[in-house]
Amino acid sequence: MTEQKATNVHWHDGEISRDERGELLGQKGATLWFTGLSGSGKSTVMVALERALHERGKLCYRLDGDNIRLGINKNLGFSAEDRTENIRRIGEVAKLFVDTGIIVLSGFISPYRNDRDAVRALHNDDNMEFIEIYVDVPLDVAEDRDPKGLYKKARAGEIKNFTGIDDPYEAPSNPEVVLKSHELSLEQEVEALLKVLEQRGVI
Amino acid sequence: MTEQKATNVHWHDGEISRDERGELLGQKGATLWFTGLSGSGKSTVMVALERALHERGKLCYRLDGDNIRLGINKNLGFSAEDRTENIRRIGEVAKLFVDTGIIVLSGFISPYRNDRDAVRALHNDDNMEFIEIYVDVPLDVAEDRDPKGLYKKARAGEIKNFTGIDDPYEAPSNPEVVLKSHELSLEQEVEALLKVLEQRGVI
Repeated sequence: MTEQKATNVHWHDGEISRDERGELLGQKGATLWFTGLSGSGKSTVMVALERALHERGKLCYRLDGDNIRLGINKNLGFSAEDRTENIRRIGEVAKLFVDTGIIVLSGFISPYRNDRDAVRALHNDDNMEFIEIYVDVPLDVAEDRDPKGLYKKARAGEIKNFTGIDDPYEAPSNPEVVLKSHELSLEQEVEALLKVLEQRGVI
Repeated sequence: MTEQKATNVHWHDGEISRDERGELLGQKGATLWFTGLSGSGKSTVMVALERALHERGKLCYRLDGDNIRLGINKNLGFSAEDRTENIRRIGEVAKLFVDTGIIVLSGFISPYRNDRDAVRALHNDDNMEFIEIYVDVPLDVAEDRDPKGLYKKARAGEIKNFTGIDDPYEAPSNPEVVLKSHELSLEQEVEALLKVLEQRGVI
């Protein structure tokens, strides 16, 4: 145990607030919820936006299948019940990040409107920014891209309950942003998102 | 959709790494895992450490019952199985924060050694700092404090499976830090923790 060095420690009562953390970071926490078909381009724009934000000195973090499905949600499958719980937990994790002052980029197909709206409501309850971004491409475009070969497997019946093939995708009714990734350049997509973040005072 | 303003956006390949986020923040992510009886003083020292770190410009976040049990773990009870899942999820959330570069202060009784060691192993697997802090006071000290009146209810049989009364607390066998909060001033506790964080290059 160290000796007391009281000169190094200043004492104040109370907990650090969300606003204080935001001042430290020079930004406001927010959840950017990217939804869309497999192959729609969610990851591509998220990685590009992450880079653009980092270069502006902004702290952001991407939640995706790699760090969620292999971690906190490793005990969930793909039944309707588990899909709902999957999105609920991601939403709760996102809120903790927003409370810390971080810009969360959440990228999941998240095909069911009710699940996404529940996450939005959780954010609204605590006065947190929730920005729904619909990465909107026609199914045939996504299927042509098929970056992971999943559509091919779904068409062959090797994967069941695949969104867009034998499981529905429910498009957002009123998303904050729509990105038609087959009609826009990556630069245009990132610029659009940065503009929204500026307008909302996130950056 | 905005027009293209390519001069505002610089393009680089690849994802932002944990190290790049750490450089942005001027710190290294770490999980500080506070364990100990109810009333041992976990929250008190966590709030004081949070303040001390914030004043040094360091970003930290506290995980506690208020933001975990009411959020991501709201669907868990207090059976042995649910307690284990509770700690597992907290450990996975902590890892996401560490990956972001944040100093996580996690404060839960976390009475079972196996559960804590599992979280430590999860951190080790991904080369992340895990610092176990045993807030160590005798049961009679904690029971005398009884800040939430829970020991009184447990003794009266109104709460079952209460750690220290009718459920075991398994002390850490090799914690990085032991804080005997009944023998130390709050200043001494915070100084001890700051010293450990400096030694490990977290701050």
